[in-house]
Amino acid sequence: MKIVLIGAGNLATHLGASLREAQHEIVQVYSRTERSAQQLAHQLSCSYTTDLHTLHTDADIYIYALKDDIIHQVMQQVHIPHALHLHTAGSVSLFQADNGNFGVMYPLQTFSKERPINFQEIPICIEANNCDSLHIIRTLALSISDNVHIISSEQRRQLHLAAIYACNFVNCLYTNAEEIMENAQLPFELLCPLIQETAAKVKEIRPSNAQTGPAKRGDTKVMQHHLDLLHSDLQKEIYRLLSKDIHMRHNK
Amino acid sequence: MKIVLIGAGNLATHLGASLREAQHEIVQVYSRTERSAQQLAHQLSCSYTTDLHTLHTDADIYIYALKDDIIHQVMQQVHIPHALHLHTAGSVSLFQADNGNFGVMYPLQTFSKERPINFQEIPICIEANNCDSLHIIRTLALSISDNVHIISSEQRRQLHLAAIYACNFVNCLYTNAEEIMENAQLPFELLCPLIQETAAKVKEIRPSNAQTGPAKRGDTKVMQHHLDLLHSDLQKEIYRLLSKDIHMRHNK
Repeated sequence: MKIVLIGAGNLATHLGASLREAQHEIVQVYSRTERSAQQLAHQLSCSYTTDLHTLHTDADIYIYALKDDIIHQVMQQVHIPHALHLHTAGSVSLFQADNGNFGVMYPLQTFSKERPINFQEIPICIEANNCDSLHIIRTLALSISDNVHIISSEQRRQLHLAAIYACNFVNCLYTNAEEIMENAQLPFELLCPLIQETAAKVKEIRPSNAQTGPAKRGDTKVMQHHLDLLHSDLQKEIYRLLSKDIHMRHNK
Repeated sequence: MKIVLIGAGNLATHLGASLREAQHEIVQVYSRTERSAQQLAHQLSCSYTTDLHTLHTDADIYIYALKDDIIHQVMQQVHIPHALHLHTAGSVSLFQADNGNFGVMYPLQTFSKERPINFQEIPICIEANNCDSLHIIRTLALSISDNVHIISSEQRRQLHLAAIYACNFVNCLYTNAEEIMENAQLPFELLCPLIQETAAKVKEIRPSNAQTGPAKRGDTKVMQHHLDLLHSDLQKEIYRLLSKDIHMRHNK
């Protein structure tokens, strides 16, 4: 497949590398920022542009790996109706237009430029506005991952919300823990085995069955002591509400 | 070392197995519940009792692996002053008495009976009321773990609080994600690679530097849409407060 990559962020970088490895031909990279476009194009040995009007028009697939809030706006500016136009966002619905081939290829993972990612195990959730397009997306997705799922826009929205809890909010709690460790002059590394085991557990035991701790036991003495140790009202309120959520789920 | 294990829960089970493997002699298990005492004693090939008055008195070390709120109360009932008395709890201070040898050996990990645990990598945080006891505890801890730290009761309290965030509260968020997936008729397993990667990342990048997502970007449109998808007021409030915490940390 001949592919144009629109976007040069973390996801575009990892996706581009992975698609190239799967023998697809990345013919061009677009980014508003010249430096990003140039950097990724160099990595993928292709040309680049910062102007949507100079996109190659002979590619098979255009992948829009952009920030959620500008995806549809950028898609509207590209008129290459014979090709397939995919975006990669969890929270953006399938693009609708009078004619053309549109789809979604949402890889459910968190990407940092620094960390290598093996796409093979990453769930890729796909959707399209017609059967031919869905077939092409499925083939493309299966060329980089063993874990491809056809899901609706509505399911994808829910999946994205669940991912916010499992990734963004979890990392927020890690950050709260990091701050507590710093204040106590303890190395953050002490927590790493606990963090890894807590995450590894869910592969075998559903989180709803794996809950432990003072909130589950209803140990109000320990909880009150913890609240006294916390400095800000926001921290205290987060502690209270998460404890309440745990307690209510386990004492229905 | 000759050891009496007081308690027969998850921690006592894993700790007992690990101490025995390190060639210590577990001479007796105590539990209020006969079945638990019997089961663990069988596993460790030792005797058991459900009566504190029939504890062996000739052991070197008594390990109180009990629920936080009964530890001091049980310790008060055991009078074997020549021996060393250790508890294993994060949130319970060092036991104080007129004479005797007291200490803490707090393994920072979450234990489920079903999952095998390799103590070797688990941080064990120790404390004692005199130097001789500290030396004995250190030797004991090092016989099962390479990761032994001497910390104060005050630091341990902070560490336990940080662990609540990194484990109990994180699992609470996993449970919220599990519920969202169920409601959308999506398999929970889809989230596993994301959960593992989010946890693995903190070994290389501090969580405060690894944050991503709509709350960090201040993407109020996506956040409002997520709030609309959530059913209960508690869920909405947790979503709002964690988003606020992320936003405030990254937009100081």
